[in-house]
Amino acid sequence: MRKLFPFCLLALPLLTKAQTAPDLVQYVHPIFGTQRMGHVYPGATAPFGAVQLSPDTDTIPYELNGKYNPDVYKYCAGYQYDDKTIVGFSHTHFSGTGHSDLGDFLIMPTTGELKLNPGVATQPRSGYRSAFRHEAETAEADYYKVKLEDYNILAELTATTRVGFHQYTFPATNQAHIILDLMHGIYNYDDKNVWTYLRVVNDTLVTGYRETNGWARTRRVYFAMVFSKPFDQYGARKYDRRQAYHGFWGHFDQNHNFPEQAGRQIRMHFDFKTQEGEKVKIKFALSPVSTEGALLNLRTEIPGWDFEAVKRQEQEAWNTELSKVVIDAGQEEKENFYTSMYHAFINPTVYMDVDGRYRGVDQLDHTAEGFVNYTTFSLWDTHRALHPLFNILQPTRNADMIRSMLAHYQQSAEHMLPIWSHYATENWCMSGYHSVSVIADAIVKGNTPFDPNKALDACIATSTRRSFEGLGDYIDKGYIPAERDGVSVSSTLEYAYDDWCIAQAAKKLGRMDVYDTYSKRAQNYKNVWDPSIEYMRPRLSDGSFRKDFDVLSTNGQGFIEGNAWNYSLYVPHDPAALVAMYGGNKPFVRHLDSLFTMELPDKFFAETEDITRDGIIGNYVHGNEPSHHVAYLYNWTDQPWKTQERVRMILKKQYKPAPDGLGGNDDCGQMSAWYIFTALGFYPVAPGSGDYSLGSPAINRAVIRLESGKTFTIQAENQSDKNVYVKKVTLNGKPLAGHTLTHQQIMQGGTLVFYMSASH
Amino acid sequence: MRKLFPFCLLALPLLTKAQTAPDLVQYVHPIFGTQRMGHVYPGATAPFGAVQLSPDTDTIPYELNGKYNPDVYKYCAGYQYDDKTIVGFSHTHFSGTGHSDLGDFLIMPTTGELKLNPGVATQPRSGYRSAFRHEAETAEADYYKVKLEDYNILAELTATTRVGFHQYTFPATNQAHIILDLMHGIYNYDDKNVWTYLRVVNDTLVTGYRETNGWARTRRVYFAMVFSKPFDQYGARKYDRRQAYHGFWGHFDQNHNFPEQAGRQIRMHFDFKTQEGEKVKIKFALSPVSTEGALLNLRTEIPGWDFEAVKRQEQEAWNTELSKVVIDAGQEEKENFYTSMYHAFINPTVYMDVDGRYRGVDQLDHTAEGFVNYTTFSLWDTHRALHPLFNILQPTRNADMIRSMLAHYQQSAEHMLPIWSHYATENWCMSGYHSVSVIADAIVKGNTPFDPNKALDACIATSTRRSFEGLGDYIDKGYIPAERDGVSVSSTLEYAYDDWCIAQAAKKLGRMDVYDTYSKRAQNYKNVWDPSIEYMRPRLSDGSFRKDFDVLSTNGQGFIEGNAWNYSLYVPHDPAALVAMYGGNKPFVRHLDSLFTMELPDKFFAETEDITRDGIIGNYVHGNEPSHHVAYLYNWTDQPWKTQERVRMILKKQYKPAPDGLGGNDDCGQMSAWYIFTALGFYPVAPGSGDYSLGSPAINRAVIRLESGKTFTIQAENQSDKNVYVKKVTLNGKPLAGHTLTHQQIMQGGTLVFYMSASH
Repeated sequence: MRKLFPFCLLALPLLTKAQTAPDLVQYVHPIFGTQRMGHVYPGATAPFGAVQLSPDTDTIPYELNGKYNPDVYKYCAGYQYDDKTIVGFSHTHFSGTGHSDLGDFLIMPTTGELKLNPGVATQPRSGYRSAFRHEAETAEADYYKVKLEDYNILAELTATTRVGFHQYTFPATNQAHIILDLMHGIYNYDDKNVWTYLRVVNDTLVTGYRETNGWARTRRVYFAMVFSKPFDQYGARKYDRRQAYHGFWGHFDQNHNFPEQAGRQIRMHFDFKTQEGEKVKIKFALSPVSTEGALLNLRTEIPGWDFEAVKRQEQEAWNTELSKVVIDAGQEEKENFYTSMYHAFINPTVYMDVDGRYRGVDQLDHTAEGFVNYTTFSLWDTHRALHPLFNILQPTRNADMIRSMLAHYQQSAEHMLPIWSHYATENWCMSGYHSVSVIADAIVKGNTPFDPNKALDACIATSTRRSFEGLGDYIDKGYIPAERDGVSVSSTLEYAYDDWCIAQAAKKLGRMDVYDTYSKRAQNYKNVWDPSIEYMRPRLSDGSFRKDFDVLSTNGQGFIEGNAWNYSLYVPHDPAALVAMYGGNKPFVRHLDSLFTMELPDKFFAETEDITRDGIIGNYVHGNEPSHHVAYLYNWTDQPWKTQERVRMILKKQYKPAPDGLGGNDDCGQMSAWYIFTALGFYPVAPGSGDYSLGSPAINRAVIRLESGKTFTIQAENQSDKNVYVKKVTLNGKPLAGHTLTHQQIMQGGTLVFYMSASH
Repeated sequence: MRKLFPFCLLALPLLTKAQTAPDLVQYVHPIFGTQRMGHVYPGATAPFGAVQLSPDTDTIPYELNGKYNPDVYKYCAGYQYDDKTIVGFSHTHFSGTGHSDLGDFLIMPTTGELKLNPGVATQPRSGYRSAFRHEAETAEADYYKVKLEDYNILAELTATTRVGFHQYTFPATNQAHIILDLMHGIYNYDDKNVWTYLRVVNDTLVTGYRETNGWARTRRVYFAMVFSKPFDQYGARKYDRRQAYHGFWGHFDQNHNFPEQAGRQIRMHFDFKTQEGEKVKIKFALSPVSTEGALLNLRTEIPGWDFEAVKRQEQEAWNTELSKVVIDAGQEEKENFYTSMYHAFINPTVYMDVDGRYRGVDQLDHTAEGFVNYTTFSLWDTHRALHPLFNILQPTRNADMIRSMLAHYQQSAEHMLPIWSHYATENWCMSGYHSVSVIADAIVKGNTPFDPNKALDACIATSTRRSFEGLGDYIDKGYIPAERDGVSVSSTLEYAYDDWCIAQAAKKLGRMDVYDTYSKRAQNYKNVWDPSIEYMRPRLSDGSFRKDFDVLSTNGQGFIEGNAWNYSLYVPHDPAALVAMYGGNKPFVRHLDSLFTMELPDKFFAETEDITRDGIIGNYVHGNEPSHHVAYLYNWTDQPWKTQERVRMILKKQYKPAPDGLGGNDDCGQMSAWYIFTALGFYPVAPGSGDYSLGSPAINRAVIRLESGKTFTIQAENQSDKNVYVKKVTLNGKPLAGHTLTHQQIMQGGTLVFYMSASH
């Protein structure tokens, strides 16, 4: 009895609070991960919001003297915690990526002499940027506040799905300015701006668009901007290298109060007089389709001017999302957990107007009929844990994401599902065709409010596009010859896993011919396995393995974001076969152990992408995704306790409740989703199966509230930082054999109890 | 009786033929004016067609070594008669302008080795261009044919309103190519292409768009291109200086059979095998709105593949338009007259899809409700005679053009009617606000299927936009101070005339307060008249006239496209007052005479814009518009016979039925409209009044078929090159006193008879 008591006591207040939306926002710290490699942004965003309104602390050119400027990488999310100045607040940001784009429509409030250049960080007051201090900075879920010291302006930000809401508290001045910088962007290439357009409709409304050629080959974002107070005057300055034809535009003074601007490089300013403490507010709406769409979004989502009310409403929305899992855990764990939940629930992003209109990858305007259209699909990352997490916590959204991917497929000139897509463009980033994993996972788990057979057809079409990276050869030979492709081994491995996903979906749909074909293709990982050295290895067209080969290097060895050590363990769909390939239980455990414990030469750290030195444990690279399932592979050996030990160690080492808490890019929520699953005690080693592999819960208790209304409760008895080993697991009071929990078991509701211990 | 007989005999066959659409196309020679300064194009276009499918004979960079390349001017219409090679066939051209743009989507058929560079004219076979000879060239209304000698390909072109139709007859070859060049354009600036996009939808359909920054600050044209025969393969080459991010596009070979291209500089090729005499046809549709719109246009306007049938249908359409005036005249006069009719009826151009969708100057998509939307408004030129001509021959279209102008006004950020607009952009070219002349002319003449009061409001708003070229000063002081504006005098004069137009429209609508205000403004021409020298002269803010002043120079003297000599006669709305200012009848006649007879210093020819030396008669510059009314001013003196003499002389000297027949730019039909009016015997000296000033008809007989079904017949008895003087005029058998014919008299139908003589 005693044992059960604490749970009962805990359960009641938790559930009661939950019914009125518990205050979980308090545990969310968007500032976590903003230092170094996390590449998350601290600004304001609604759940899955189209607007990410966040401070940018510098603008770094992508190239210096014609060469790639490595410093640019720091600014993937626009903000670096160590910086001392803020350039302004722009409306679009990626969360945790390793390449970037966006940073659209930078707003900066200033006072005094008008400066239209951002200036440089090293020279105070050299431009419109302002000094700031973290002591005068607050970052919450969908609320950001900072004092701009150079101007004595308090800046506050919040956002609805499609509208950013700025509130600037000015001192008394005759020279208050709002700068709108259309030149600013994250990853600023020389020619990045394709075109920008602005129209001052009246003394409180400005509309326009920005089109860029960056990571997205062509990306156009429309806006509508409304001021709470009419500006006294306005002006524009153009920094275009040249413009083809000036002609008779001299009929007007285009720099002052001229209502229409177009060009590649434009900055605007809007001037006011303000009294002490006067608030100037701006509502800034985005649209993928038109300025009319932006205005519709603006008027629909924020009809009034009550900043506090909007902030409150949006934080309530966050509480609702966060309370899909209510945990009992230590303060640090709670902060990590809910910050992870926050980071997991800000991508993919909504990509349509309130009336459903969006731009397709065919560059035509479409209306999403019966679903919400999403973009920002970082699928190489997110197919692993984020989308499986959504199948539990966000099944409706996940199905809509799949519908968005199917719409992409319909519109694609290449007749393919998305690889990595954002803003109506395919950027082809990374390898594999992991849309099929997301789709198969949903089909296998029965989350299919779309036509699963059509979805499977799209998977088949994508996986048979012979002109796509080595795929023709892969289909013909069973592997990609090393001569053809620089990442031939990792792509072969990823294709094999993706093909297994297709097979699983086909099986579920009773299409056994497809199942047979793709089950065969799923075995292709064996074709790049060199049993003589027990590594996956580049193989030439003639069938021989490449001679020159370094199993530790990540450069030029046939792998992407990983070395042979890590990628050789990448057979998520058949760990048992993998264990066998290594000679069985013992040698495999020995091999896995050395992964986590070996000491690496220094050069390895220098060349490993996207992660800090802290992001590497032995030779295990948590900051890059290909190893995310690896710690769970001990479950396929006789030493599953090592999974329990390792995952708890990784949780502690790789996720710290601090600005520098993330050892690598959060990768659009994948790193966070890993945290959430692992902290709850299980992980989807092979999305596309209905199985989760058990680990070691880092919480005392968690209640998962399913969309069906059912709850799934996880209890970890006697859990602590030391008690990481699982002695026994029961599901609904009955012992759970093995190390597998099924999706069905979760979705039926019930209680999973882990009995924890300090020893294995 | 004898005198009447010939008319009766002529009348019957003319009318009978007319009822079945007389073959007037035979008199149209689009090649006239293609040599030197006419700047017309010889290619295929439907009446007021959105597509102008025409050969371009060279591509000249707008700048050489960073400076304006004066040779570019020759290529305003893409074609120069003296050139020996054709680069290809592009789909958009201006007719007769003095600045340029367009040249979208160049198609070139070739054989043999693939060349994707146009090459240079001086080096045969240095690129894809081909030699041609005029002997193997035919240019008709909406039909163009040429033998491409380098490839032994017969090229034929025709067009519906929105679709160009190509027919290429190939020799037998395994290497037949169709090149689609998206880099090509007329007036090629370095950065002119903002963006281009292409999608190969299947093996016969390609869609995409081109966006440029040229004369139109931003102009986007969408296309859909269908081949009659599937291509075997295709490819693309990109010539972009650089592209921001290549990233993972290397997953594909983008140069061969890759279905999606985007960038600033792209050329495509489509490859075929052809048999001897095999025809490869292309339908190429344009849209201002989307590729879907282009496809809709294509499928609606040319559903089949019968080139001959489309050509026949379109030439019938031309016959219908041309037969609005059926003339009896000499062969040369007929060729001049119908070629002028053709050139008058190819601008403005239709600017909407078949479903009415078009892009507005607000950059939003609109649907034209109940009217046809037009663009290409060269209003400084065309308000003088082209739109008045339309009020007689094309009243429905003219009213729709005004509706288009009013839509522009509604969409304009500056809240102004168009100045010079094309393709959803205002380019602000030239001076004045002559939309108001076009609108007032229609209101005064009762051609108002639009709301005339709203139209007048738009005129008032436009004429009170103080920030527009000197307008604030003009309103305050009654003239534009010379310090403020380089063309202060001509603009003051043009504003005064435009203001008079507004007054006339107001009077017609009974808005006498507006009439009073604008009648006063209409007197402002007097404020730049220096009676001490009897010239219009730049005036400074302090009221004094500028000291340094050259009445012959056209540079820096305060005038645009004209000198003080010509512009001092520009008071079209009150010639009687002008005569008085010159001291009355005698000195005015003496002054006018010297205009036509003086000998000019050589420097004058060098600096006079847009015209050949032949385009100047004495100091009278017919090739530029400000003097177009001048020859008719003798009608306000006691020597109206000099009007008759001069206009006949101008007709002969300035309009020749030959490639070098035009002495200056046709200016979007204004020069041609002058010809048509003058050849018929009358001219609208002051559009905005209902009056036409009589001249000397150069035809024997003309039947104007009005939209109402009525006809207005003009007979010139005893007319010949020598018998240019008018002894008597009767209207419906009654003598017509004075030298004025009214619009009402024409529109009521009837017969106007000029009795001609060899002596005055």
